[in-house]
Amino acid sequence: MFKPRWAFVLIYLIILLSLHLGNVFATIPTGPLVQQQLDRVLRLPGQTFNVSFAHYAGYVNVNEDAGRALFYWFVEAAEDPASKPLILWLNGGPGCSSIAYGEAEEIGPFHIKADGKTLYLNPYSWNQVANILFIDSPVGVGFSYSNTSSDLLSNGDKRTAKDSLTFLLKWLERYPQYKGRDFYITGESYAGHYVPQLSQAIVKYNLATKEKAINLKGYMVGNALTDDYHDHLGVFQFMWSAGLISDQTYKALNLLCDFQSFIHSSNSCDSILDIASAELGNIDPYSIYTPTCPANVSQSNRLLKRVHMVGHINEKYDPCTEAHSVVYFNLPEVQKALHVDRRYAPSKWATCSDVVYTTWKDSPRTVLDVYRELIHSGLRIWMFSGDTDAVIPVTSTRYSIDALKLPSVKPWRAWYDDGQVGGWTQEYAGLTFVSVRGAGHEVPLHKPKLALALVKNFLSGSSMPSLKLVSDS
Amino acid sequence: MFKPRWAFVLIYLIILLSLHLGNVFATIPTGPLVQQQLDRVLRLPGQTFNVSFAHYAGYVNVNEDAGRALFYWFVEAAEDPASKPLILWLNGGPGCSSIAYGEAEEIGPFHIKADGKTLYLNPYSWNQVANILFIDSPVGVGFSYSNTSSDLLSNGDKRTAKDSLTFLLKWLERYPQYKGRDFYITGESYAGHYVPQLSQAIVKYNLATKEKAINLKGYMVGNALTDDYHDHLGVFQFMWSAGLISDQTYKALNLLCDFQSFIHSSNSCDSILDIASAELGNIDPYSIYTPTCPANVSQSNRLLKRVHMVGHINEKYDPCTEAHSVVYFNLPEVQKALHVDRRYAPSKWATCSDVVYTTWKDSPRTVLDVYRELIHSGLRIWMFSGDTDAVIPVTSTRYSIDALKLPSVKPWRAWYDDGQVGGWTQEYAGLTFVSVRGAGHEVPLHKPKLALALVKNFLSGSSMPSLKLVSDS
Repeated sequence: MFKPRWAFVLIYLIILLSLHLGNVFATIPTGPLVQQQLDRVLRLPGQTFNVSFAHYAGYVNVNEDAGRALFYWFVEAAEDPASKPLILWLNGGPGCSSIAYGEAEEIGPFHIKADGKTLYLNPYSWNQVANILFIDSPVGVGFSYSNTSSDLLSNGDKRTAKDSLTFLLKWLERYPQYKGRDFYITGESYAGHYVPQLSQAIVKYNLATKEKAINLKGYMVGNALTDDYHDHLGVFQFMWSAGLISDQTYKALNLLCDFQSFIHSSNSCDSILDIASAELGNIDPYSIYTPTCPANVSQSNRLLKRVHMVGHINEKYDPCTEAHSVVYFNLPEVQKALHVDRRYAPSKWATCSDVVYTTWKDSPRTVLDVYRELIHSGLRIWMFSGDTDAVIPVTSTRYSIDALKLPSVKPWRAWYDDGQVGGWTQEYAGLTFVSVRGAGHEVPLHKPKLALALVKNFLSGSSMPSLKLVSDS
Repeated sequence: MFKPRWAFVLIYLIILLSLHLGNVFATIPTGPLVQQQLDRVLRLPGQTFNVSFAHYAGYVNVNEDAGRALFYWFVEAAEDPASKPLILWLNGGPGCSSIAYGEAEEIGPFHIKADGKTLYLNPYSWNQVANILFIDSPVGVGFSYSNTSSDLLSNGDKRTAKDSLTFLLKWLERYPQYKGRDFYITGESYAGHYVPQLSQAIVKYNLATKEKAINLKGYMVGNALTDDYHDHLGVFQFMWSAGLISDQTYKALNLLCDFQSFIHSSNSCDSILDIASAELGNIDPYSIYTPTCPANVSQSNRLLKRVHMVGHINEKYDPCTEAHSVVYFNLPEVQKALHVDRRYAPSKWATCSDVVYTTWKDSPRTVLDVYRELIHSGLRIWMFSGDTDAVIPVTSTRYSIDALKLPSVKPWRAWYDDGQVGGWTQEYAGLTFVSVRGAGHEVPLHKPKLALALVKNFLSGSSMPSLKLVSDS
């Protein structure tokens, strides 16, 4: 149940009054708490249940000159948010919305029913253990925008990290109650670039300013693009071992694609990837054992960018969940409730931006150098992997970690949830690996309960549970 | 509904009368039809439904001197059995009962509920398309026995093939209506040895006798042990790629086990297999994404021999199904209904015989030479693979087929069932490969609908359905 704090209620009333009076306060400077309360989201369209937590949505301007603004949705913890850490969640693509995936079908509390209009409460939302911040990153993604149209054609890793850092600093000004709070960055897929790069930017900023403006404690990435060479080897091996491609194609991929960039591949590699894609047939490469959404029969498999969605690994999974987001987030009343400015809203909201994806600029071949740097900074670093994803599979993550040549601290073993194997884990000096059994590319979508167990252990810094611990509890 | 044929009913009445009169006919020679009708199984204990087909169970003596007798259960096709082929189904181990697996949890019509007492009709039984013969093979397995106790300690591939050939010849004498019927041999796991070896024995017998006593048309094996070297490579690669074992163990397996026999491995290899098994944790290696039966928490993973059972890939799957068989087939009234001779019945019926497994004699390192011979004999040969089995995984089957160096006739592609990818297929000159997506070691257990589609296409000799064909139908 929602319990209002009275100071906020008062500010509310003032704001509501101001809106009724025709925005008379529009030119009056607003304090952080006022803007915070302006961003507060009240009941959402299709929300048939009450919630115990506050949540906020709006923009943070990350570059005044260009007019670049990142859209965020911030969900406080379900209970006692002041005692809980702050988590940022980022989706990949490049070009995909963290609202579409992270919030609406993975770790967020508000999930969308098949009618595209009604919400239901995700019982495994990560806001059970943390305050969660979702941002549409970079500009051109989801509701994030730039007034400089060329910005949308010049996105890349460097500016994404820089704008995200600016976002966080300004966001903490708006939410001063989270200044100094334990902060963790999480994400999946191409966010395997964003997350360590942003972590690195924060560490550098803190060192330069000699104050911990952002109290970064660690980061965790899932099915993360990490190192093009090793990730490619892993993809090809996984596709062959799982029986998805022919011997001939496997050989050709290893011959023509192993040293390619994931984002900027050669024509000869692309043509073999097309053959591989045709051989896969109409499966969801992001979750190879689940059925596809019937609406997506003729789909192209673009690696990393989620152009389609499929699957059914637990009884409740709906392979068309992405389509429901498209309906919901295009509803004018939903956009209004989320404080989307209609002047800057996309004409049609999409889960992923083709423009951002196809015009992506700088994308280093590896972020392992960032890992090497950050492992020594004392951050907690976890890499997880849904083991039925063929896009950045468990083999890729294993090859990438192996390339770091870290000493093993605790050996490979199964971890457990409710007496069943939830996956496998190995702890290295400075890095922990955790796989999630039977989960695809979007781990919290297919295995929400296991994903919640994962983040709980990540936040507490403890090893994943063994069978014994589960039996003892 | 069962429609009696009147000639048989008459024989029945005579038999029933004879039984009432205290077996006065016991010493009177019985014709084949009389023995056939003596073997007829009437309503089974716990059978709460009627069936449209006749079925029979009993023994065929395969060696008079030693007193070796193989137990069989024969299920006629649900409709028009006279028009349908005859299929033999064999399970592996060595030492596992085809009644326990093939009949009661895979392709047979009578499956057992969790109470161990009640039956239900398998809606995907292969007797929709064929008459199915299950045999407990060799002696010492299930209800098959030998009066020469040393026989139980001296089983091996050669005698199994020889006894099975004798069985078939004598069985066809008892069931003359099946003489000349199109005949196919099918099976899984260690039956990857039995099936081609028995096929070879039949081909040789037919050549020697210059008559087609057994009208063998082809064979089909699933997750079949084929070639120790290539199968081992495939197992190790699959276990690493699926994220089940550590890097270290993967390297050690390849170093110490690659040239080992599956059945008779060295101590050093066994010790690494033990480490691998510990690393797997409490999963079912026969179906790596399904939950385990809670009763089987401390289970040893003995490769090939099914010492435990687990899983849940479709909603209806019961991971404890094997335990229900143990209850049911130990019921005296069930054994009586199946014509088990209490004098020769095991004191406790088991799904698999430890004695047979541990004392197994001859087991060639490869049966690829048998394939090479039989491919040229014009038999239809199919190899299928449930692609979530880690015991004889899809990688093993691919390596073994590659070792045959057969020309490709139709390229690798996905096949479809109800618009979803059912698996992948490639057709070689003389051999067809078919994988079944999301199925474990016992393909028809986890994916019964796909398995029925598989056998239908095998029997008709047609390629697995493409998406287009499905859409057109």
